[in-house]
Amino acid sequence: MSAQHAFASLNLALPPAPKPAGVYKPCLIDGRHVYVSGHGPVLPDGSLITGRVGRDLDKDAGKAAARQVGLTILATLTASLGSLDKIKRVIKVLGMVNAADDFGDHPFVINGCSELFSAVWGPDHGIGVRSAIGMGSLPGNMAVEIEALFELA
Amino acid sequence: MSAQHAFASLNLALPPAPKPAGVYKPCLIDGRHVYVSGHGPVLPDGSLITGRVGRDLDKDAGKAAARQVGLTILATLTASLGSLDKIKRVIKVLGMVNAADDFGDHPFVINGCSELFSAVWGPDHGIGVRSAIGMGSLPGNMAVEIEALFELA
Amino acid sequence: MSAQHAFASLNLALPPAPKPAGVYKPCLIDGRHVYVSGHGPVLPDGSLITGRVGRDLDKDAGKAAARQVGLTILATLTASLGSLDKIKRVIKVLGMVNAADDFGDHPFVINGCSELFSAVWGPDHGIGVRSAIGMGSLPGNMAVEIEALFELA
Repeated sequence: MSAQHAFASLNLALPPAPKPAGVYKPCLIDGRHVYVSGHGPVLPDGSLITGRVGRDLDKDAGKAAARQVGLTILATLTASLGSLDKIKRVIKVLGMVNAADDFGDHPFVINGCSELFSAVWGPDHGIGVRSAIGMGSLPGNMAVEIEALFELA
Repeated sequence: MSAQHAFASLNLALPPAPKPAGVYKPCLIDGRHVYVSGHGPVLPDGSLITGRVGRDLDKDAGKAAARQVGLTILATLTASLGSLDKIKRVIKVLGMVNAADDFGDHPFVINGCSELFSAVWGPDHGIGVRSAIGMGSLPGNMAVEIEALFELA
Repeated sequence: MSAQHAFASLNLALPPAPKPAGVYKPCLIDGRHVYVSGHGPVLPDGSLITGRVGRDLDKDAGKAAARQVGLTILATLTASLGSLDKIKRVIKVLGMVNAADDFGDHPFVINGCSELFSAVWGPDHGIGVRSAIGMGSLPGNMAVEIEALFELA
């Protein structure tokens, strides 16, 4: 099954592909790689899921935010490349959680994005290396920010 | 206009290229890429701009610190490569702000570096992907730390 | 001296190669590069060194934790590639310290990993670019998390 068909079968809505909030490109092609800027959890109305995980949001709400970041990255890839089928595989994900000082379930939270990518590109090509970490703060108090590196098909 | 001429036209002084503060190289060439270590805002006298943005420094001072980090990266590139013209384009910037817990204007701060790179290499080649994030702490309480990836000309 | 012999001469024990704590691969080969996920300081019994550096652990204990992360990365490389000789050189290290708000010796801490890599692959090939930064929190309150990029031999 193609990535585009796999995504369609999930019955999930893509948010609008976000416009850069600063001086950067949403994604950039470099040879057979696509670098993707740090993305936030953009909702269909264009707003962001905000709050600190472990204080304002529980870990399940944090995981849902990470999935929304994944959808936002898919929106950028779709807008830039025309189809998710242009991506061969996930190389790397940097999952940054706006977390309380004593929060420790960052991998559980970032799985929200990783499970989405795995469903789209499959359990081999959809899963790359990853770091899951807790930030002191994030732009606009967004709950999760994720940057990624993909290989083109 | 070449990058070297564009930089000269800005009438900005480069700080001294910093010596590594630990066991790492300031930059490393890998094929057609140049990886650049995390750099701080080094002033012409070799000292660092310190303090937490949103508490000790306001966002404009934070942006000025990020521009100084950009100048410090240019100093490393110049010392290592001989000329800014050896760089074709910016691939990726990771902008790390030593920010107060409730700070949210990280993209505004990191624009200080990104606008400098855009002025040097132009609005296409000078702008890459980016993440702008808030750290719990940075070495020596520096205000901003930025690492970058460039493509060689 | 080969990397494998250099490592043997250090008389250090490798911890068990950690199983992923989430949806990611411990490492991934992409052309002539090996991307390595964020690793923690795994002890021989499989537990993690935990605590915040500058509060629960002093900087020397933090450096020891970073060395243990380095050993854990070597365990993953050995399990995945069969030998440390399959690595030509270190390209990049991202050293993330679970640090107190007022901690500033991140480079000293991350040297614990960098000095290990330098001993294994030598002072040229064992040392790459690096950022050393302080996180708001890390998974399971681990003291240090490090991700890395290597070039294959």
